[in-house]
Amino acid sequence: MSEFNKTDPSKFLSDIIGSSVVVKLHNGVEYLGNLQSIDGFMNVVLDDGKESINGQVTKSYGDVFIRGNNVLYISEA
Amino acid sequence: MSEFNKTDPSKFLSDIIGSSVVVKLHNGVEYLGNLQSIDGFMNVVLDDGKESINGQVTKSYGDVFIRGNNVLYISEA
Amino acid sequence: MSEFNKTDPSKFLSDIIGSSVVVKLHNGVEYLGNLQSIDGFMNVVLDDGKESINGQVTKSYGDVFIRGNNVLYISEA
Amino acid sequence: MSEFNKTDPSKFLSDIIGSSVVVKLHNGVEYLGNLQSIDGFMNVVLDDGKESINGQVTKSYGDVFIRGNNVLYISEA
Amino acid sequence: MSEFNKTDPSKFLSDIIGSSVVVKLHNGVEYLGNLQSIDGFMNVVLDDGKESINGQVTKSYGDVFIRGNNVLYISEA
Amino acid sequence: MSEFNKTDPSKFLSDIIGSSVVVKLHNGVEYLGNLQSIDGFMNVVLDDGKESINGQVTKSYGDVFIRGNNVLYISEA
Amino acid sequence: MSEFNKTDPSKFLSDIIGSSVVVKLHNGVEYLGNLQSIDGFMNVVLDDGKESINGQVTKSYGDVFIRGNNVLYISEA
Repeated sequence: MSEFNKTDPSKFLSDIIGSSVVVKLHNGVEYLGNLQSIDGFMNVVLDDGKESINGQVTKSYGDVFIRGNNVLYISEA
Repeated sequence: MSEFNKTDPSKFLSDIIGSSVVVKLHNGVEYLGNLQSIDGFMNVVLDDGKESINGQVTKSYGDVFIRGNNVLYISEA
Repeated sequence: MSEFNKTDPSKFLSDIIGSSVVVKLHNGVEYLGNLQSIDGFMNVVLDDGKESINGQVTKSYGDVFIRGNNVLYISEA
Repeated sequence: MSEFNKTDPSKFLSDIIGSSVVVKLHNGVEYLGNLQSIDGFMNVVLDDGKESINGQVTKSYGDVFIRGNNVLYISEA
Repeated sequence: MSEFNKTDPSKFLSDIIGSSVVVKLHNGVEYLGNLQSIDGFMNVVLDDGKESINGQVTKSYGDVFIRGNNVLYISEA
Repeated sequence: MSEFNKTDPSKFLSDIIGSSVVVKLHNGVEYLGNLQSIDGFMNVVLDDGKESINGQVTKSYGDVFIRGNNVLYISEA
Repeated sequence: MSEFNKTDPSKFLSDIIGSSVVVKLHNGVEYLGNLQSIDGFMNVVLDDGKESINGQVTKSYGDVFIRGNNVLYISEA
C-alpha cells in the first residue's frame, strides 16, 4: 500500500517550506520556527527555532534538526 | 503476507478523502477535520483541523499534517 | 524466515472477511463489527463498528479504519 | 546477518504445528490452544483458544489470530 | 552500514549453539537452557528451558521459542 | 515518499560537522561535544563529549558513539 | 539518506575493537568489557563483561552478546 492520492500529504509539507510552523513531538513539547527543510522521514530543520512547553518558550536555538520519528504533527503557526 | 483482499483497507481511505473525519491517536487525542490527503503510512493532512481531548475542542488549526505512526483509527465524523 | 506453513495465518484472516469480529488493541480497547477488509499489516476496516471498554460499548461508528500496528488479536465474535 | 544455523528456530515452530501450545505476550497474558498456523512474523492462529491471566482462564475463543509483534515466547503446553 | 568486522557478533552466537546459556529479556526475566538454535533476529530456541526471576526459577519448559526482539543479552551460563 | 526538497535536512547535518553541538536524547539527557561524524540513522560520534542533565555536566568522555534511534534533536551549541 | 560523511560513525566503532569500552543501554545499565566485535545494528560482543548499575559492578560474564537495539551509547572506558 503506497501513496494512493494525487495530492498526497508530502505535497503539503513541500508547500509550507519557508513558512512559520509548529512541530509537536510525542513528548508534548512544541518547536516553533521557520521550516528550512524536511524529508520523507519527517526529519525537520527549523531556522530560529524555539522550544515551547505548555505555551511558554523555554529555549531558543539558531538552527535545530529534529529527528522525524519523534514528530506528532506539523502545522502552520 | 501482503494485501490479500480485493477490497483492501486502503480503498476505504481513498473513498473518504474530502469527508469530515475523526483521527484518533495513540495518546487518546482526536483530530477532527476535512481529510485533504492520506498516504499508505497513514500520514494525514486535515483542512480546518481541530484538536479534541475528552470531547472538548482544545485547539484549532488551518491545515495540519499528522504523522501516520501515531494513528490509532480513522472514522467518518 | 518467511511463511513456512501451507495454511498460513493470513488464510484465517481471508476466511473471516464478512464475519462479526472482535479486534482487541494493545491499549485493551476492543472494536466489534463486521470485517469489511484487512491487509497484511493488520489494517482493518469494520462496518458498523463499536468500541467496547471492559465489556461496555462506549462508542458507535459507521465504518472505522484501524491501523494494524495497534492490533493485539482478532477473533470471531 | 541472516539465519546462520542449519537448524534454525523456525524449524521448531513448524514442528509444533498441531500441538497444544502456550503463547505468552509482552503484556504478560497467555493464550493457550492448538497451534493451527504460524508465519515468520510470529503471527499465530490458535484453535480452541483460551486467554489466561496469572494462571486463570479468563476468556475462550473459537479461533483467534494473534499479531506476531506481541509475542514474547511460544512453548509446548 | 553493515557488518564491518571480520569476526562479527553472529559468529559468537554460532559458537555457543549447544551450550548452556542465559537469555535476558527487556522485562528483566531470564531464560536458562541449552541453546538449540538462533537466527539473525535473535529468535532463540532453548532445550530444557527455565524461567528465572530475580535468581529464582519460576517455571520450566520442554523447548521454548523466544522472539528475538525481546532479547537484551545472551551469555554463556 | 523520499527526500523532496533540494535542501534536505541531511545537508544541515553535513554542514555542522566539526562544530560544537548539543545532541538531546529521548530520555532528556543532552550530550555536548564536537561533531566528529554522523550518518543517515543519526548515529553520532562526538569528540570531547560531555553528558549534561538539567544543565549540569554529569560525565565526560573522550569520544562517544551515540546510537541514532535515541536522538530527539541536534543543534549547534 | 545514507552515510554522507567520509568519516562515518561506523569507522569509530571499527577503530575501538579490542579496546575497553562502556556500553550504556536504554535501561540505564552499563556493560563494561573488551570490545570483541560489533556490527551495523550495534550488536556487541564483550569479552570479560561486567554489568554495572549506578557505578557498582553487579554481575560478571565470560563473553556476553548484547542486542544492538538496546544500546544508548558506546564509549572507550
